[in-house]
Amino acid sequence: MKNKKVVLAFSGGLDTSFCAIYLKEKLGFEVHSALVNTGGFSIEELNKIEEKAYSLGVASHTAIDKTEDYYSDSVKYLIFGNVLKNGTYPLSVSAERVCQATAIAVYARKIGAQAVAHGSTGAGNDQVRFDMIFNILIPDVKIITPIRDLKLSREEEIEFLQKHGVEINAEKAKYSINKGLWGTSVGGKETLTSSEYLPEEAWSVPVTKHLSEKLELQFVKGEPIALNGIFMKPVEVIQQLQDLAQPFGIGRDIHVGDTIIGIKGRVGFEAAAPIILVKAHHTLEKHTLTKWQLSWKEQLGAFYGNYLHEGQFHDPVMRDIEAFLTSTQHTVSGKVWIELHPYRFVILGVESEHDLMSGQFGSYGEMNNVWSGEDVKGFSKIFGNQIMIWHKINQKTQSDD
Amino acid sequence: MKNKKVVLAFSGGLDTSFCAIYLKEKLGFEVHSALVNTGGFSIEELNKIEEKAYSLGVASHTAIDKTEDYYSDSVKYLIFGNVLKNGTYPLSVSAERVCQATAIAVYARKIGAQAVAHGSTGAGNDQVRFDMIFNILIPDVKIITPIRDLKLSREEEIEFLQKHGVEINAEKAKYSINKGLWGTSVGGKETLTSSEYLPEEAWSVPVTKHLSEKLELQFVKGEPIALNGIFMKPVEVIQQLQDLAQPFGIGRDIHVGDTIIGIKGRVGFEAAAPIILVKAHHTLEKHTLTKWQLSWKEQLGAFYGNYLHEGQFHDPVMRDIEAFLTSTQHTVSGKVWIELHPYRFVILGVESEHDLMSGQFGSYGEMNNVWSGEDVKGFSKIFGNQIMIWHKINQKTQSDD
Amino acid sequence: MKNKKVVLAFSGGLDTSFCAIYLKEKLGFEVHSALVNTGGFSIEELNKIEEKAYSLGVASHTAIDKTEDYYSDSVKYLIFGNVLKNGTYPLSVSAERVCQATAIAVYARKIGAQAVAHGSTGAGNDQVRFDMIFNILIPDVKIITPIRDLKLSREEEIEFLQKHGVEINAEKAKYSINKGLWGTSVGGKETLTSSEYLPEEAWSVPVTKHLSEKLELQFVKGEPIALNGIFMKPVEVIQQLQDLAQPFGIGRDIHVGDTIIGIKGRVGFEAAAPIILVKAHHTLEKHTLTKWQLSWKEQLGAFYGNYLHEGQFHDPVMRDIEAFLTSTQHTVSGKVWIELHPYRFVILGVESEHDLMSGQFGSYGEMNNVWSGEDVKGFSKIFGNQIMIWHKINQKTQSDD
Amino acid sequence: MKNKKVVLAFSGGLDTSFCAIYLKEKLGFEVHSALVNTGGFSIEELNKIEEKAYSLGVASHTAIDKTEDYYSDSVKYLIFGNVLKNGTYPLSVSAERVCQATAIAVYARKIGAQAVAHGSTGAGNDQVRFDMIFNILIPDVKIITPIRDLKLSREEEIEFLQKHGVEINAEKAKYSINKGLWGTSVGGKETLTSSEYLPEEAWSVPVTKHLSEKLELQFVKGEPIALNGIFMKPVEVIQQLQDLAQPFGIGRDIHVGDTIIGIKGRVGFEAAAPIILVKAHHTLEKHTLTKWQLSWKEQLGAFYGNYLHEGQFHDPVMRDIEAFLTSTQHTVSGKVWIELHPYRFVILGVESEHDLMSGQFGSYGEMNNVWSGEDVKGFSKIFGNQIMIWHKINQKTQSDD
Repeated sequence: MKNKKVVLAFSGGLDTSFCAIYLKEKLGFEVHSALVNTGGFSIEELNKIEEKAYSLGVASHTAIDKTEDYYSDSVKYLIFGNVLKNGTYPLSVSAERVCQATAIAVYARKIGAQAVAHGSTGAGNDQVRFDMIFNILIPDVKIITPIRDLKLSREEEIEFLQKHGVEINAEKAKYSINKGLWGTSVGGKETLTSSEYLPEEAWSVPVTKHLSEKLELQFVKGEPIALNGIFMKPVEVIQQLQDLAQPFGIGRDIHVGDTIIGIKGRVGFEAAAPIILVKAHHTLEKHTLTKWQLSWKEQLGAFYGNYLHEGQFHDPVMRDIEAFLTSTQHTVSGKVWIELHPYRFVILGVESEHDLMSGQFGSYGEMNNVWSGEDVKGFSKIFGNQIMIWHKINQKTQSDD
Repeated sequence: MKNKKVVLAFSGGLDTSFCAIYLKEKLGFEVHSALVNTGGFSIEELNKIEEKAYSLGVASHTAIDKTEDYYSDSVKYLIFGNVLKNGTYPLSVSAERVCQATAIAVYARKIGAQAVAHGSTGAGNDQVRFDMIFNILIPDVKIITPIRDLKLSREEEIEFLQKHGVEINAEKAKYSINKGLWGTSVGGKETLTSSEYLPEEAWSVPVTKHLSEKLELQFVKGEPIALNGIFMKPVEVIQQLQDLAQPFGIGRDIHVGDTIIGIKGRVGFEAAAPIILVKAHHTLEKHTLTKWQLSWKEQLGAFYGNYLHEGQFHDPVMRDIEAFLTSTQHTVSGKVWIELHPYRFVILGVESEHDLMSGQFGSYGEMNNVWSGEDVKGFSKIFGNQIMIWHKINQKTQSDD
Repeated sequence: MKNKKVVLAFSGGLDTSFCAIYLKEKLGFEVHSALVNTGGFSIEELNKIEEKAYSLGVASHTAIDKTEDYYSDSVKYLIFGNVLKNGTYPLSVSAERVCQATAIAVYARKIGAQAVAHGSTGAGNDQVRFDMIFNILIPDVKIITPIRDLKLSREEEIEFLQKHGVEINAEKAKYSINKGLWGTSVGGKETLTSSEYLPEEAWSVPVTKHLSEKLELQFVKGEPIALNGIFMKPVEVIQQLQDLAQPFGIGRDIHVGDTIIGIKGRVGFEAAAPIILVKAHHTLEKHTLTKWQLSWKEQLGAFYGNYLHEGQFHDPVMRDIEAFLTSTQHTVSGKVWIELHPYRFVILGVESEHDLMSGQFGSYGEMNNVWSGEDVKGFSKIFGNQIMIWHKINQKTQSDD
Repeated sequence: MKNKKVVLAFSGGLDTSFCAIYLKEKLGFEVHSALVNTGGFSIEELNKIEEKAYSLGVASHTAIDKTEDYYSDSVKYLIFGNVLKNGTYPLSVSAERVCQATAIAVYARKIGAQAVAHGSTGAGNDQVRFDMIFNILIPDVKIITPIRDLKLSREEEIEFLQKHGVEINAEKAKYSINKGLWGTSVGGKETLTSSEYLPEEAWSVPVTKHLSEKLELQFVKGEPIALNGIFMKPVEVIQQLQDLAQPFGIGRDIHVGDTIIGIKGRVGFEAAAPIILVKAHHTLEKHTLTKWQLSWKEQLGAFYGNYLHEGQFHDPVMRDIEAFLTSTQHTVSGKVWIELHPYRFVILGVESEHDLMSGQFGSYGEMNNVWSGEDVKGFSKIFGNQIMIWHKINQKTQSDD
């Protein structure tokens, strides 16, 4: 049965290399490997992975570039929503996986594959994201997960590959690194404990900048459109900001959170650009949005992030929240100044023609001509009216007891 | 009419000194000045203020110590709720004002005062907090606000005081500083703009520590009960942590937010202990609370903080939220390790017997014996079931169009 | 000063008739009366009010028809959001007032008035809605409120009018009735107590239908576009449904709620069409929306209703919520069958091509081919995983105590 | 292996009768059947089920009475939270299943069973509730689900039973009825469609009362403690109210909702007492709670109901919400008068010493002495201040464009 096609989500690592051989040799599939690039791969890396794929005997290999889509479908809303999971983590990996799984599903349908395969183990979030998105978008296509099903050890996989003539570097990296547009995740040793922090050597980019630098970000309707006065695409702002700020060691932290499968997980991340962009954007919003816009954005942004993290991107409620978030951004335009220091940064201030902190309406702590002390007296009375009544009524009934 | 009593919330500054004389000389009151100490005043400062009060001719002066009550009525819940307004500000001033206004109201009722006075201007949040809490707790007592009503300039106040034989330092401090248990606020010049940051000289405590230090905080049911292994009262943990961390310049930032009266306000704050305690406590919770406990705490904590900020402490809903928060803290016990650096700190890790990230149930990214890959396959299918159906149904109706 | 113009929100009743004379004779204004019709007035009523206005000596009178705008700016979203305040009240009056105040403000600006006047007393919600919306939209135009300021009795107003040659019916109606597109409010005697219900005579439309009737409503993207198979404008669906259902006594109830000024208010209402439309629309949504769409709509709809009730229509967060609600309605199309009975109705069922309750994916309680019992076993295990771990961990620590 | 014990959740119906024989004869278990009564069974019914169990050869049979626990652990909070899922369904079945599964788990642990069995099919919510609660509370005990695993038809089950000498009524009831303390569910034929309503014959109790009746409910701290002036236990209030109101046909409706497994389900229910109690309790709250208490109760109550419906009773967040709800009930005491009519009821009014709608603070629409029109003017100005500023700022920037 020659033309039984499978699309394999391929990264070039040990697990997906094993899958490539296994799907072909053991299951008799025509293997079409695909890598979805969401901004984490250089051309050299992409070429190397393609070479690797063909060396494993795949029928075809494709690198699907979804960087721009990834920004406009997900990252944009993570900025709009100031999304930091549990107040900390910019969803560096989770949002990316959803984008990748979706692209793989679309590709599988396009080439008429009977099956789709991914290399996830049975112990993490990614398996759920891949399984679920495939079930949702291509429910008629079979899902194959050799690593999860066979539960092979690293050594067994290597042995299997060697038997099939594939030599692979048997050494395991001390830390598992996952680099993407919206940050790099770092896992290993210390992150498996609750009590230890990652050592300097674990981070993918060493700290090489020690003198403070100022920079300017410009937003139009919530999107970053210029860095230090130079206009560019939002994806480029992110990438250039990352290059600029990461050597400061900015945006490093450890996220502890709830996985989709119910256990607690701990993972390091270095996300200079995401953290700076979210904080800068949020500060601009504090100047330009109303109290209730800020309050609802906080709730809806948190839900959006959590639900995206759980892989539920294709629930139509996500489109509804995106419509909400987009609507809030009409006045989120202006400049934000930031100062970078080793391991930290400071938001210096903002400038926006939509700034509600306008001197013409009175400054905080300074008198003005728009309202009077009498107005505030009346306000205070009415604003506390119900609680005054509550205390009167319930004090009376208490003393009646 | 000799025995017409007024209680004056007194700080010893220009405005409340003016009020003392004005209430006595112009309005004919017997003035009882009161200062509510919520942990921001030393004994020397309290004595100096008392001296000042009597020199202004008050009938009595009282310093009401509410530090412990302030912790147990408010600060404790700000820790439980990880409250940082707009993700930034620990409510250093707002929570304190509410406590002070409440204590003044209780005192006014106790001594049978016909009136109560405060020195707020017509341009800030404090006037609303004082007015409203007085209206709620002592609605039958008249509120007098000479500064707001007379709209005098600084110079006019000084002149009035001089006429009544009171000499006062005419120089205005460059920055207005407000020191309390839960942080110090800093306002002036730059904070009146949207774009400028406070200079080094503006902060009340200079940066004198440059070498990193590790420390250990211990929590029991959400409350900080030990610092570096030494057990002490929570108030002492806060104060000693502040002494230890503030010389690093930790916890400095600028808060931009919505005032109760609708304008945007910007204020600097230095709150080393509050920020460290909230972040350490939150990290411990990420290890010990369930996903939905964390999620609801986030929402209710944010509301609690915002509503307290607006002075609405006496709404019974606040007691209800406190009951919720207290219930969540049953398992929030354990140690948190922190490393202090100049201007920043790192949460290194935690240890708790309630830690849900327990190796015995499988680690994130590692296989285990509690559940299988098959379980997760089933989970993924059912977890995405509704959205799969949605896409099937609506794809069909779309193609029907 | 002949050309000092005031726009008076005019209803033709005692209070606004008094205002017309008072503004002209006592304050020397050129009075331009305006009535904003949001669907509650017949042509005869409008003509009678116009006649009355000119008889009081106004310089001009205008009837501004905002029925369609009222629907598309507010009522539509009350349907989308299934808004019933406190689970009961369709905001019959509140939404209308906001629309009227806005139209008056726009009109005042258009004719270049120096002042704007309304006849509200100092005891209700309407004064806040009018004041606030005028302050927001025309902050430079003076607001005049003779009834609130002068605190005249009914008798004094009548006497004043007689003095100025205006005869007015001195009898006060037993119940105050306010008829609008989105329902009629009924206040008086019993509604001033907490314990008594309105008698049959209080309601504006008597119960004259006693035999059950079936009807069909059709929605497209959330909007009602046909009644019993006849296509018409949404405003007409509302009006014809009201004519059809009100004689059954359907939609009568008493709302108890929080006024903007903090007191509790109680008001009767008869809102057959609003209640039927909201319940029918909601049922259609239960079939066509996902779990989280329903959940977030509930929260956002409740806030939208409460905030509109408080007159805060012009906060941009309302536009953001409208964007959310509109997005959710893409699949809310279909038919709903209803049976009317005296004083009540039953939603019989729905039909929609977007119905997610489709037999092809398995029926509730019936086996199917899309997922297996094994899938559900896995789901149940993982779905309860965190709580299983929590109990294991905390049971252990409990027994350690 | 004689002493291999299984606890079987037993109802006496076809499915669990099959399980009893199957577990004993095919799997070699010592079968201990258990029925958890949550108020839906009479003594006669319990005796009949016990007889049936022994006739099937169980080693022991136990009827566990959890009626009081069911009330105090769940139903009480459903009243406190005014829980009606999707604004309609009082969770008649869902809350009960959770209570039953929990009791079975505790019993299984108590008698040291190696396995626990339930008769759920693979198509509904109950399987998830049973599986998950067993996994959570007794993760070491094996779960056996013969009906789900074997996928037998009704006929095959009957044949199997006959082979083992058990005669069973082969006729299937037209409607599946599930009676409990908190209402009766009714499923069958019409509820499998989206468009049809249940006929009169489907309901378990026919309508026999046609003349209206008044009744009085009394609540103390949110709990119903008297009916028509006679004090009794809350469980008795529920049962007697049900007897009194059900013959009116009150509380009948159809619930359409999201099942735990993602499909939409539709089920009829008759729940006179739950609906009347929730509406009466809610009305009392509208008089006695503050605006924000009502608002947060709405959100938390909805979540509590949805999450309980999904079987997640043992998440500690449920205890936290119960603490919140209990705190809100301190002032929810008083009487509520209701009028029953065929198929409907009217809440006439309430009386409570905690009623915030007190004449002494001014009535809605009537002037008073507590605040003035000037106070409201000031309030309106400040209350709309931010939005006024927003329009000024953004109108300016718009016209600049």
